[in-house]
Order: sequence, then C-alpha cells, then structure tokens
Amino acid sequence: MAANGSGGMHDALLDSSLASDDDLLSNWYIYETMEPAVPQDDMFPAVIPDCEPTVSPRMYHICMAPISLAVLLGLSLLVKRRRLHQSCWNGVPGLLSPANFLEEEGNQGLVAAVFGILFSSLCVLVLDRDPLPFISHSSQSTREYWKIMALLYYPAFYYPLIACATVRHRLSYLVGCLLSWCHCVVHIWQRVDCPQSPKIYRYYSTLSYIPIILCLVLLSLWYPALLVRSFTVQEETLDKEVTGRGYYKKYLKAVLSKRPRKGSSTKIEESLLSRIQTYLCSYIYTPEEGFRIPLKLVVSITMAVIAVYQVALLLLVAFVPTIQIVRAGMTKDVVVLLVQFGLVPSDNPAVPGDMEKELNIVKHYLWSLEVCYICSLVLCCLLTCAMLLRTLVMHRNNLKALYQGAVLDVFYKAHILRPSRQAIVCWMSFAGFQTAFACLGLLIQQVIFFFCSVVFAFLVVIPLQYSTSSPFFTIVQNMWPFWLTLVVAVIVQHLAAHYQFLEQHPLRKELTNRRALYIVTYLLFPINVLVGVLAGVWRMVISGLYNAIHFCQLDISLLNRGVETFDPGYHTYCHYLKIEVSQSHPVMKAFCLLLLQPARPERPAAPQPSHVEEGIQLMQPERTPLSRARVKRSRARWGLAYTLLNNPSLTACRKTALSDPTANGTQLSPPKP
Amino acid sequence: MAANGSGGMHDALLDSSLASDDDLLSNWYIYETMEPAVPQDDMFPAVIPDCEPTVSPRMYHICMAPISLAVLLGLSLLVKRRRLHQSCWNGVPGLLSPANFLEEEGNQGLVAAVFGILFSSLCVLVLDRDPLPFISHSSQSTREYWKIMALLYYPAFYYPLIACATVRHRLSYLVGCLLSWCHCVVHIWQRVDCPQSPKIYRYYSTLSYIPIILCLVLLSLWYPALLVRSFTVQEETLDKEVTGRGYYKKYLKAVLSKRPRKGSSTKIEESLLSRIQTYLCSYIYTPEEGFRIPLKLVVSITMAVIAVYQVALLLLVAFVPTIQIVRAGMTKDVVVLLVQFGLVPSDNPAVPGDMEKELNIVKHYLWSLEVCYICSLVLCCLLTCAMLLRTLVMHRNNLKALYQGAVLDVFYKAHILRPSRQAIVCWMSFAGFQTAFACLGLLIQQVIFFFCSVVFAFLVVIPLQYSTSSPFFTIVQNMWPFWLTLVVAVIVQHLAAHYQFLEQHPLRKELTNRRALYIVTYLLFPINVLVGVLAGVWRMVISGLYNAIHFCQLDISLLNRGVETFDPGYHTYCHYLKIEVSQSHPVMKAFCLLLLQPARPERPAAPQPSHVEEGIQLMQPERTPLSRARVKRSRARWGLAYTLLNNPSLTACRKTALSDPTANGTQLSPPKP
Repeated sequence: MAANGSGGMHDALLDSSLASDDDLLSNWYIYETMEPAVPQDDMFPAVIPDCEPTVSPRMYHICMAPISLAVLLGLSLLVKRRRLHQSCWNGVPGLLSPANFLEEEGNQGLVAAVFGILFSSLCVLVLDRDPLPFISHSSQSTREYWKIMALLYYPAFYYPLIACATVRHRLSYLVGCLLSWCHCVVHIWQRVDCPQSPKIYRYYSTLSYIPIILCLVLLSLWYPALLVRSFTVQEETLDKEVTGRGYYKKYLKAVLSKRPRKGSSTKIEESLLSRIQTYLCSYIYTPEEGFRIPLKLVVSITMAVIAVYQVALLLLVAFVPTIQIVRAGMTKDVVVLLVQFGLVPSDNPAVPGDMEKELNIVKHYLWSLEVCYICSLVLCCLLTCAMLLRTLVMHRNNLKALYQGAVLDVFYKAHILRPSRQAIVCWMSFAGFQTAFACLGLLIQQVIFFFCSVVFAFLVVIPLQYSTSSPFFTIVQNMWPFWLTLVVAVIVQHLAAHYQFLEQHPLRKELTNRRALYIVTYLLFPINVLVGVLAGVWRMVISGLYNAIHFCQLDISLLNRGVETFDPGYHTYCHYLKIEVSQSHPVMKAFCLLLLQPARPERPAAPQPSHVEEGIQLMQPERTPLSRARVKRSRARWGLAYTLLNNPSLTACRKTALSDPTANGTQLSPPKP
Repeated sequence: MAANGSGGMHDALLDSSLASDDDLLSNWYIYETMEPAVPQDDMFPAVIPDCEPTVSPRMYHICMAPISLAVLLGLSLLVKRRRLHQSCWNGVPGLLSPANFLEEEGNQGLVAAVFGILFSSLCVLVLDRDPLPFISHSSQSTREYWKIMALLYYPAFYYPLIACATVRHRLSYLVGCLLSWCHCVVHIWQRVDCPQSPKIYRYYSTLSYIPIILCLVLLSLWYPALLVRSFTVQEETLDKEVTGRGYYKKYLKAVLSKRPRKGSSTKIEESLLSRIQTYLCSYIYTPEEGFRIPLKLVVSITMAVIAVYQVALLLLVAFVPTIQIVRAGMTKDVVVLLVQFGLVPSDNPAVPGDMEKELNIVKHYLWSLEVCYICSLVLCCLLTCAMLLRTLVMHRNNLKALYQGAVLDVFYKAHILRPSRQAIVCWMSFAGFQTAFACLGLLIQQVIFFFCSVVFAFLVVIPLQYSTSSPFFTIVQNMWPFWLTLVVAVIVQHLAAHYQFLEQHPLRKELTNRRALYIVTYLLFPINVLVGVLAGVWRMVISGLYNAIHFCQLDISLLNRGVETFDPGYHTYCHYLKIEVSQSHPVMKAFCLLLLQPARPERPAAPQPSHVEEGIQLMQPERTPLSRARVKRSRARWGLAYTLLNNPSLTACRKTALSDPTANGTQLSPPKP
C-alpha cells in the first residue's frame, strides 16, 4: 500500500515535471541568461559592464611603487645623516623601523590605520583574479604564485606610510602628508569612477574598499597634524610626548597614588542588581587613567573589527541577492514540485492547477530564510564586537596583574616571564592570529545561529502562523507527562535534600537520614539517567555555544584547564604576554628613563608598602636599626620572604633560582622562624 | 549551453526512471513486502513471527512482584526482631537500605550487578511497546504513563535482590540465593525459548538482554558464596570485613607507612620515553594497595560500560542490516540514476545499457560506507572505555588529594567540603549522569568519526583505488605553493627568532635586534593572518575533538577555567566529591572506629610530621617546653600557621571562619613574627 501511494506521487511528479520542463528551466536559469526578466525588483538589472577607472590600478601601482621606494631610501639617508655625528657609521640604521611596538609612542591610531589598509588589501587580493596589479589576466596556474608575491608586495608598498612617523622629523612628516594624500585621492577617484563591478555583487567592491579609504583619510589628517605640531610645540615637550615618557610617568603616578581598596566588607552588601551591573560593566571597555593598552593590542583589535566588517559584508552579499533572485523567479511549476515533495502544505496537492496561495507561501518561506539570515548575521556581528570589547578589558586586567607579578592570577600554572624563541614567534604573529580568529569566529557563529533561527522559524513560528502541525508541537503534546515527571523528580530530590537529608546546624550542615537517602538514590536511579540525558544535551549545547561565541577571544582557552595551552590561540596569547610584560613593563621603562636623566637626579616618591608593585617595593636597608646580627638577619629574611610572597614573579630572578634550572619560581616556602 | 546540457541529462533521467519505474519500486521496497526475494543473503529471510515464551513476561512479573514484596516485608521484620532487644521500637528501620553507599562494604560487585540489571531494563523499556509487563497492547496515548510507571516499578521490583545483602543475616542470604536463581532461570529460559524477535533486528532483543543475564548470573553466584562464608568464617572477622573496618585500617596503614617520595632531582633525569610511558600509564587504572574506589563510583563506571554496550549494539543493528539489505537489493536502474546524478563515475553516462561495472562500483561504495561505520563504532567504543578507565584514575587522584586537604589541586577555586542541598542532589544523581553522559558521548563520537571516515574514504581512498580525481587532490595540486609559503614563513620566523632576535646569555635570554624584529613583524603580517586561519581551524578541530572524546568524563569541565562549573557534568562531579570526602573520609572512619572500641584503646601509630594527612597531624602541645609566654605563643602561632598552610581545608573549620560567613578558607596570610 505504501509502495502504491508513493508510486502514484512519483508518477504525478514525473508527469508535471516533464510537462513544465522547458518553462521551469527558462525561469530557473534566469540569472545565468542575464535577461532583465523581472524588472520590478532593482536587485538584478542588466549586466554590469567591466569598468575601467581613469587611474587604473596597474598605472597607480607602477607610479607609486617607485615613489615609495625612493621615499624609503631618502628617509633612511635622512636618519643616517642625523645620527652620523653621534656615532660615525656605528649602529646606523639600514632600514627604517615601521613602528616601535614595544615602546609607548603617541601614534597608535596611525599604525593601526596602516595595518588596516594592509589587511583590507589582503581581503581584496584573496578573492581577486589579478592579485598583483602589474600583471593583468594571469592564468589559473600562475595566479597562485602572484598571490604569494602580493602577500609580500603590499606590506612593502605601504611601508613609507608607516615609516614616516617613526623617523620623527619635519621632513618625514611632510613626505607622509604628501604620500597619504596621494594614495587617498587615487583610491577615492577609482571608487567614484567605478562604483559598480560584476564581482559577486555590484557594490561589493566599493563596500570592501571603504575601510581602506577611511584609513587613508585618517592618515591624511594625522600627518598634517603631526607636521603642524612639530612647528608649534616645544622640542622637549614633543620628545617627551612622542617617546612615551609622559605615559610612563603617568602610570607610575597612578600606581603610587593608588588609594587603598575598599575592604571586603563592602562586598557582602552588594545586591544582586549591582552585581549584575558590575558583571555587565566588565564587558565594556572604558579607558582608565594611567594605563594605556599596548600598541600591538590596539592594532590587533582594530584588525579584528575590520575583519568582522569584511567577513560580514562577504556573507551578506553572497547570500541575500541570490535568495532575492530566487524568490522573484519563483514560479508555479516549482511550487508544484515543492508541494508534491511535501515541503509546502497544500489543500489539494493532486491538482497542480491554481497554485496562487502556495506560491505566496513559498515566497513567504524564502523571505523568512532571508530574515533569519540577516538577523543571525547582525547578532553575530554584535556578539563578536562585544567579545572584542570584553577581550580588551581582559587584556588590561591580565597586563596589570602581570605587572604586579601576580602570575597565578593570569595563568593556571606558573610561568617565567622572559623571552624565548616560542614567545618571540607568538608575539610576531599575535595580531595576525587575532584577525584570523575574528573572521573564523564570525563564520562559525553565523552557521550556528542561522541554523538555530531557521529551525526555530520553521518548527515554531511558521506552523503557528499557518496553524499547521509541526514535529515540535507533536513532541511537546505527546511527551508532556514525561517532561513533567523529570521536573517533578528533580524538585522532589531538591526538597528532600533540603528538608530531610540536611541537618540545619547553625554553624555546620550535616548529613542525616542516610538510609532514606540511599533508598531515594536507588529508586530514582532510572529517572536520574533520563535527567542526565537532558543534562548531557545541555552540556553539549552550552560548550558548543560558549566555544563559538568566545572563538575570537585569544585570552580564553577553549580547552580544559589541564590542557589549555594545546589551544593554539591561548598558547599564542600566553607567549605574547610574556614578551609584552618582560620587555615593556611601564615601571621598568620609567625607572630606565630616570636612570638616563643624569642632570636632575629626582627620586621616585616613597613607595607605599601596602600596595606593592614589582620592582618598586624592595627592601630599604637604611631604615633597619643597627642592632644585633641575629635580629638583623631574621628581619632581612622576613622582609625577603614577605616581598617574595607578595611578588612571586621576583623569585625567578633570584640568584639561586637562576642557577638552578629546576626551580620554577613559585614553590614559596614560608620563612622559618 | 549549461541549461541545455542539464536539460538533456534531466530528460534522460526522466525517461529511464519512467521506463523502469515498476521494476525499481518492486526492488526498492523489497523489505517492506517481506518477500524472500534475494535468498542468497541470509540477512533478510522470511518474516520473523512474534514469539511467545513459555513463561511470558506478564506471567513472570505477576508471580515475582508479590514474592518480592513479601521478601521485602519479611526482611524488614527480621531486622526489626534483631534490633528490638537493643532499643525497643526506637530507630527501628521501616524499609531496608539498598546499599550503604557512603560506608565501605565488601559487596561492591553485587550492588553494581543490581544497578546493571536496573539500567538494562530501562534500556529495554524505553524502546518497548509495552513498557509495563502487566499491561499488554497499550495504546499510544497511555503508553507514556505506563513508561513513567515502569521507571518506578523496576527499581521496586529488583529491590529485594540488593537489600538481601545489606541485612547481613544467613536467612537473608538464603532468600537472596533463591530470588536470584529464580530471576536468572526465568530470563535464560525466555531467551532460549525466543532467541529471535521482529523488533529492530532479529537478534537485538537477545543481545540487549545479555547484560541482565550476566548480572543475574553474578548474583546467583555471589549470594551462595556469602551464605557459605557466613557458615565457615568466624563472626568477628566477618563483621570486620563486611563493615569495611579492614579497609579503613589498611588505608591508615598505607598512609602512615608511606615512604618519602623520591625528590625532584629524579624528575629531570627522566627521558622522553619514560615520560610517555608515565603518561600512558596514567590512562590505565591499576588497583593500589590501601585505596579502594568508593561504591558509588564503581556503580557509575559499571553502568557507563553497560551503557556503551547497549548504545553500540543499538547503533550497530540499526544501520548495518539496513545497508546490507540496500546493497543486496541494488539494481542497475538505481545505478543509472546515480550515474546520471554524477555520484558514480561512468565511461558512457548517456547509454544506460550495460551497467555491470557501475553496479559493482555502487556496491563497493555501500560496502565502504559499512566498513567506515563499523570502524568508527569500534574506535568510539575503545575510546570511551579508555576514557572511563582514565576517569577512574582521575577519581582516585582527586579523592586522595582531597583526603589530604589539597583542595586547590582538584578545584580551580577554593571550596568548603561540607554537605549542602545542591551537593546532596548531585550526589544522588551522579551515577545516572555518568551513565547518560557515556551514552551521549558515544553517539556524538560516532557521528563525528563516521563523518570523518566517510570523508577520508570518499575523498582519498576511493579516488586512489579508481584513479579518479577528487576535490582533495585538486586542492593539494593547485595550492601547494601556498601551503609551502606558509610553512616556510613559519620556519623563517622561528629561525630568525632563535638566531637573530634572542641574545643567548648563559643565565637569562634577552631580546635583541628590535628594529629587525619590528620590520619582520610588519612585513609578515598578511602571511601571519593566513597562518592564523589555519591555526583557527586547528583550534576548532582540536576543541571539538577534545570535547567529544572527553564528553563521558565528568571529572573534566568542557568549559573554560573561569566558568567551568556552568558545565552540568563537572558541577555534579564537584558536588559529588564534596559529599564523598566529607562523609566517608577513611581516616575519619578509622578514627571513629577506634573511638568506638572501648575495650582495647589502641592508639594509632605516631604520625610522620613530614607527610601530613588531614586530621592526623595536628598540634602536639605536650612537646612544647614550658618557657616564657611569648615564645610559647609565637611557637603556637607558628605551628598553627604551618598546619594550616599544609592543610588549607582545615581553615574552614576554625572557630573564626565558621562564625564569619565571608571567609572561604583559603586566603592564608603568612604568620606575623
């Protein structure tokens, strides 16, 4: 019987599809034939012609590449000339430094902008047919090689834009001005000339160039500002600002003037509302006086935001125009097919006649898909940006903790904060990893959220709209006694545990009624297995969701605490922190700057012994009264132990620890009396 | 052109499917029509008739349920009579305890066997049409209610089997013997009567009953052994063994006689091979003298193993016979369809004539699917069992650490080990959760591994066999320069970091050549983004695989360290440990037993101060020489601090900590001199 019924449907399907085959094909391939068949929708008009801008990319690069090279050489010579009288040919720079990542300088925005241009160029070239602008119409086999060349060409091409700022000379600022204006004008001109292109979606090219143009605009404002500033502000103040001396002093001041924290007594009084408020605030990054995020982090977060934009744009233009075309091109013949496959509810599925209502239903389905897609994309972007903000807060907390030597507040196991091969490689690739993880995280989230929203829409919302049955409602209807049993069992266990099995002493709770406890445990075992299945599903869902949402965060390991460094992201982050903290500790920098000031040997303010900062609160032997040797020694030992207990990271730097390769600097034994 | 080509293929497809429609259907629905169409394969012979065993389940339950009830009542009266002369009607038990989970007793195997019977019955009833054996041919609407009833009925039905052992009387052992023999004989008889059943797969029913029969066999050997033992062994020895006094003393002896561990100097000398050996050994559970896994854990691991068997059996019989039927029923008409969809390579796809070769290819494909399925299932079972063994090792390590008060070795944050409502509920449901997680973990692993093995087989192995192209080879062929670039870039960064950017001091490595480092960082940024994409994919894969493989382990949280208790499995485990450690600490039990021995007040051996165990090494004030008050006080303080430092969990029990609700017992400040 089943076979007959199915066969009948099969026949009808074949008949109808045979009859309407030609119509179907002509409608289905509407986009391939490029005819303006549905003129009421302006999403797919006539063919977009290949547009050739006045200043072609090829011309632009052929002109600008030599200019960039010349600027680079000129600036090198300029730096050489300036340093020659200090040490003749010794330590003379060969190439200019792009940015002093480990030293605090003022031009964080400028560096981030150049990196932004670089990354956006990378996004464009990955999808481009001609990755290297000199070579047009490259063949499939050679394109791979050109792409690899382009990966190295673009950083070199934009090198002068970033290097002009580090030279710190009026001439370099002027060159930077001219270069950035030139780049900016060419890019804007190209976009105005050719706003549309046939690649993926007509406006995709223009939209994907927006970050480049914005970054170039920023540069062409930043360099003039630097130039003007170099003329107006005094030399010394400028130097102080530019080399970050001001920041280090500010940091030191903020640390030393820190008021003692409010005691733990206030913590108890916090209400639930204020705790939720505090929790939410921990997701929002607000700048703090006396602390500045390191340059590398600023660059990586900016790159991640641009990556989110580029990926979201690509996801949007790859799906939405396509599904709009499919929706507009939907005909009754396709609807008949869908009805006969049982995908669309219909009153009389056997008669493929008047299908107006079903056609509308199918269009509504496609529209729902589109809505789900856009909603989930928006949600993903918001979540990723929130997580990036959150990651900034985490970075700051971790850095501050490590500056104070609280290694175990950040890492699960003790680490020695010193450079190593691994650490340097991780530091170099940190920004790239952060960018890539933001891209991938957005993709993963989009897949998950789109799937979930489609399931929700087609199992709950649409059946409610059309008052049809859905598997979800069937399950709820048939299995409600089962769910109720599970809920009741869990509640009963909680109530029994509270009122029967727990003796409420004022000081200490104790287990009581053990026999009843054993009996309940035994009798409820089968039900607890089923509760466990639900808990397992929840475990799966929550771990999947958590990992997907936090994928873009490098400061969180997606693995369990024991094996967390097997996560490549977290591993990179840990090593990055090692370099950052060991090489650009603000207090160390401030101390070095003070040492380098021979003229006015001003001493730092007396440190507060209650709020110790690594490297500041050391022993002060002049305060010790000269009494018996034992007292002295015991006090010294005590002081040493106290200092080490408060600054565990210092242990690694002690003489014994350095000569003993097994010591890892954390196993502090208390001072023996 | 594309449309025409596609249309032509479409037409051919429709013609052929129209022509062979009847043949196709008759072959396709071969299993539904139940005809012995393909007699050469013995997987699907004639219809399996509904088999009615001599002792029907209904009869069995109608007879055994009243007997069980009577036994239960009789045993209760027996216990009552025995205790009457001690305290008349006071504290007389109403119901028998199924098993003293928190006290160490000898009958771990017996309890596990009864739980095994219970769980296997649950597995059978979930899929059964008549969950409650009294009611046959229940309707769809009432079946849910009967299932819920059955969830409570089965534990009660098998109650006497477990309770007979806890009464500890010869008569109860005798009753247990008779009952278990009776159950065992009936079950074996039923299986011998009806080895085949039409449900899912002919032998499924028999295979799924194997655990029940094995458990019943174990019981019918265990009870006679207990009975014989009660006649032969002396009363006192028996009591000592049964109440676990022997174990507690053994544990204490093992703790106190512990030799000092080998120092850390041996650790350095360990070679890589021995470290790998140690790591592998940490996955294999070997019993340790003086330590026994608690009963609840034994039960839960046994249940998990049975769950793995039941789920694997269900997965096997649901897929393999079906695909074997499809393979045997595969005809040339279906092959033509597949060839025309492009799923099967063919020399002349237009002519649907001689398809012998293609038919063999399709059969080979299906056979490959079957092989992949079985291989991945075997792998899953092995992995899950390995993880369950590993979890036993972890349980032991955690319990030992907590017995010694090393809370922070086990938990990330400090916990107070005392019972609470939450803890009791988690303790009750622990075994159920472990069982359910093992089921779900196996399912998830099977999905992942089956998918991976199918992808590997169809993208790599089968194209190699038939020398056809596959997307995998195309990607490798086209993109090898790209992969090579990434590898070279990573190697170059490592080499540069090692030889250029790291100054090799003997004591301390330092960063050098900073400018070159910045330049390399800037120039390699685009390549590092692409390396980051690969790292991100690896992050996704490794976190997914890790979570899938460790899904059955409750001692591991699948979430990040900061939020690990949001994982329901790990949350349950943490609370379970609290109850287990606080209520059945072996040293505490041994101490209590010593206190309860008024006749021979034997004292425990003097504790070794170097290897402290919580509750043993306390202060010994009689050793303090009576000197000045200050010295005394300082020594006392020092001793207290030292003790607390070594036993942090004791802090929670101090008077001040108990009266102060904010203290969490871990913030130990060093003793002030």
